[in-house]
Amino acid sequence: MGYWIDLRRCVGRMNSGPEFDLIERLFAEPLRRSGGGRALAHAQALGIGDDAAVLAPLPPGQQMVFASDLLVEGRHYFPEVDPKSLGHKLLAVNCSDLAAMGAEPLACTLSMAIRRSRVGPNASAQDRNWLVQLAQGLQDLAAQTGCTLVGGDTVGLDDDQPESFSIAVIGTVPLGQAIRRDGLQPGDQIWISGQLGDGAWAVRHRVANQRLNWPEPRLALGQALRGLAHAAIDVSDGLSSELAHLAAASARRLGQRLALHMELLSLAVCLSPGLAEQVQRGELSVEQACRLAASSGDEYELCFAAPTAARDQVLELGQALGLALTPIGWVEPVRTDHASQQIQTTNSIEPITPVGSVVWLDDQQKPLPPDRAPVAGFDHFGESA
Amino acid sequence: MGYWIDLRRCVGRMNSGPEFDLIERLFAEPLRRSGGGRALAHAQALGIGDDAAVLAPLPPGQQMVFASDLLVEGRHYFPEVDPKSLGHKLLAVNCSDLAAMGAEPLACTLSMAIRRSRVGPNASAQDRNWLVQLAQGLQDLAAQTGCTLVGGDTVGLDDDQPESFSIAVIGTVPLGQAIRRDGLQPGDQIWISGQLGDGAWAVRHRVANQRLNWPEPRLALGQALRGLAHAAIDVSDGLSSELAHLAAASARRLGQRLALHMELLSLAVCLSPGLAEQVQRGELSVEQACRLAASSGDEYELCFAAPTAARDQVLELGQALGLALTPIGWVEPVRTDHASQQIQTTNSIEPITPVGSVVWLDDQQKPLPPDRAPVAGFDHFGESA
Repeated sequence: MGYWIDLRRCVGRMNSGPEFDLIERLFAEPLRRSGGGRALAHAQALGIGDDAAVLAPLPPGQQMVFASDLLVEGRHYFPEVDPKSLGHKLLAVNCSDLAAMGAEPLACTLSMAIRRSRVGPNASAQDRNWLVQLAQGLQDLAAQTGCTLVGGDTVGLDDDQPESFSIAVIGTVPLGQAIRRDGLQPGDQIWISGQLGDGAWAVRHRVANQRLNWPEPRLALGQALRGLAHAAIDVSDGLSSELAHLAAASARRLGQRLALHMELLSLAVCLSPGLAEQVQRGELSVEQACRLAASSGDEYELCFAAPTAARDQVLELGQALGLALTPIGWVEPVRTDHASQQIQTTNSIEPITPVGSVVWLDDQQKPLPPDRAPVAGFDHFGESA
Repeated sequence: MGYWIDLRRCVGRMNSGPEFDLIERLFAEPLRRSGGGRALAHAQALGIGDDAAVLAPLPPGQQMVFASDLLVEGRHYFPEVDPKSLGHKLLAVNCSDLAAMGAEPLACTLSMAIRRSRVGPNASAQDRNWLVQLAQGLQDLAAQTGCTLVGGDTVGLDDDQPESFSIAVIGTVPLGQAIRRDGLQPGDQIWISGQLGDGAWAVRHRVANQRLNWPEPRLALGQALRGLAHAAIDVSDGLSSELAHLAAASARRLGQRLALHMELLSLAVCLSPGLAEQVQRGELSVEQACRLAASSGDEYELCFAAPTAARDQVLELGQALGLALTPIGWVEPVRTDHASQQIQTTNSIEPITPVGSVVWLDDQQKPLPPDRAPVAGFDHFGESA
C-alpha cells in the first residue's frame, strides 16, 4: 500500500484538474513549507511520498511514545461538524495522550476513510472545501505542536457509509521520564487541570460547544510535570473512570491496596462555563453539576498525582502556564480491615488484586452513597455517544 | 482517549464475564507472554494499558520508519473473509511498506471500528470467535516479524456499518540506509520479487485465493537490499503504477528525464499460479497474462533497482532467500530529442518536470501501443475494488 501518492493518483485519475491541486495543497505543500520540523530535520529523513516516512534520528537519551486513536462519524462527531474543528480534534485527542505521558509530539500519520463524493469529479465546491478545512485544522495544530504529518492512507467509501479518521502519533520523552498511570504513592495529592463538564453539557443540550470542538491538549503541562508528578492520565473517558484506572494500575504496581479519596465538591471550582451557568440559574445543584463534571467524557484535561510537599510547586506551575490546577483528592493506603467498608467504584470487571478503589466523599468527608457518587464516563460501545 | 483499556472497560460494562477474558486473551496476554520483544526490551519501556506505549530507546545510528494503512470491509476484503487471514493481512500490508524501505519492524498499534454485536452481551460464539481469530492472525505475524502490538483504540459500530481496521507501524533502519523510491540511476536493472497476478486473478474470478489472503511481506529481502538496491517500492497498487512512481520520483531527484524500459514478456516467468494455469489451459495468451500481472493490485512483492554489475549478487540473494528475483527492465536516460517518441504511461496527472516515464516493450524491444501496454493498477476510489 502506498502513501499520499495513492490519493493523488486516484483523485487524479478521476479528474486531472483541481483535485490534484487540492491534495497537493492539503498535504504535500504544508510539509514543504514547514520543512518538516524536528521529525524530518536530518539529511537522511524523508516525508510524504514514499512507502513510509523516515524520521530524523533521535538525540541520545530519548524514548519514543506511540499511540493511535480513531474517530468515527456518528460516534465521535456529527456529520454537520465544522470540518476545521474536526481536523483539529483528530490530532488534539492524540496529542492529549502524549501530554498525559509527559511527551513531546514528533510526527503523525492520518488514515482517512472518506466518501468518494468528497473528491470525485462531481464533488461540489462545498465537499471539496470540507476536506480543505479538515486538513487546515489538522495542519494548524500540527504546526503549533510540532507534530509533523508525514504520511497516511486514504480509502474511498460509498455515500451512505460513515467516514472515519485514524491518527497515529509518535512523541518523545527523555529516558525514564515518561509519566505513567501506575505511579500513585500513598499520600499523593490528586489534581485536575482546567475545567470539566463540556462533554456532559453537550449530551444534555444535544449540541457541541466551542471548547468541546476545539480541545487543547495539555502538552506544556504534561512536559512540565516530568519529574514532579508520580502519575498522570488524560480524562477523555471521564474523570471518574480514569481515576479508577489510576488506582487499579497503581495498586497492582505497588502490590498494595489503595483508595483515592475524592472530594466531589472540590470540582465546583473547575466546572465548565456551561455547567457553572446552570448552577447560577438554579437548574443544577452544585453537587449535581460536580457529579456531571466527574462523569463527563470527551474531556482532554490531565488528572495527575504529586507529593503533598509539591503543592506550592504545582500551584506555581499552574500560574506560569495560565492554567487552573485544582487539588481534588488524595491517595490513601487501605488497611485490610477497612477495605470492606469502602465503596468500590472501581470498575468491577478489572480482576485486579490488590485493589485500587475510588471513594467519592461529601463535604463532611464521608463516603457518598452510590446514588450520589459519579458514574463511570464515556462508553464507546453504549447505544449513544 | 485511552488504550485497550477502553474496550476492556466498555466490554466489561456490557458483561463482566467472558468478554473481558476474551480481550485479555486477545491483546494483553500475548504481550505478557512475549515480553514485548525489541520494542519493549528496556526497564523504562511500557506496553498496553497506559495513554500511550513507551518504546525502548533505539541503539545509536538507527532511524525510525513510520507508516499506516487502513483496510475497510467491502473495499479491501469481503465480509466472509477468514478472520485469521484478515488479521494477518492487516499487519502484512504495513510490514510490506517497511520491507520496501529496507526496514525492520519494531512496533504497531491497531485501531478497530467493529460492530458492537461482535463483543456485546448477545454476541454469538461465532462473532466472538471472529475476533479471536483476527487477533490470532495478527499476533502470529507480529511474533514472526518482531512487530510488537503495543496499543490501539476500538470503536463500536451499528450492525449495518462496514468495519475498518487501521494499523500504524514503526520500523528501524541503520542511519542513511533506508531504500527510497527516488534513487533510480541510469543503467540500473529493474527487478521484481516472487510472483504477480493474484489480485487480477481474484478480480476475474471474484474470489480471493490463499496467496492473496496471506501475503508475505518481503522483509528479509528488503533488509538484504540495503546498500545493494538504489531504489525499491512495494507493488500493492500494481507494478505498472508503482513503476511510474519510481520513475517520476527518481527523475525529479536526479533532475534528469528518465525512462524505465520494461520487457512485458519477462513477467512470464513470474506469473502467479492462477494466471499461469490459465495460460496453460489456453484461456489467456502469455502477453495477456503478463499484462494482467503488471496491472494487478493488492500485490506485496518488491520492485527494486540495482546496478547491472550487481546482477549476480542479486541472483545469489534470491537463491539464499529461496525467493525468485526476476530482472524485468532497465533504466534508460532520455535524451530530449527522443523524449517525444516515448509512450508515456507515467500517470499524466503528476506535474513533474523532468519527467520519468515507463515504456513497455514487446519481445522485439519495440514500444507496445497503448492498447497492448498494462494499465495502471488498483484504484481505491474506483467503483469496485
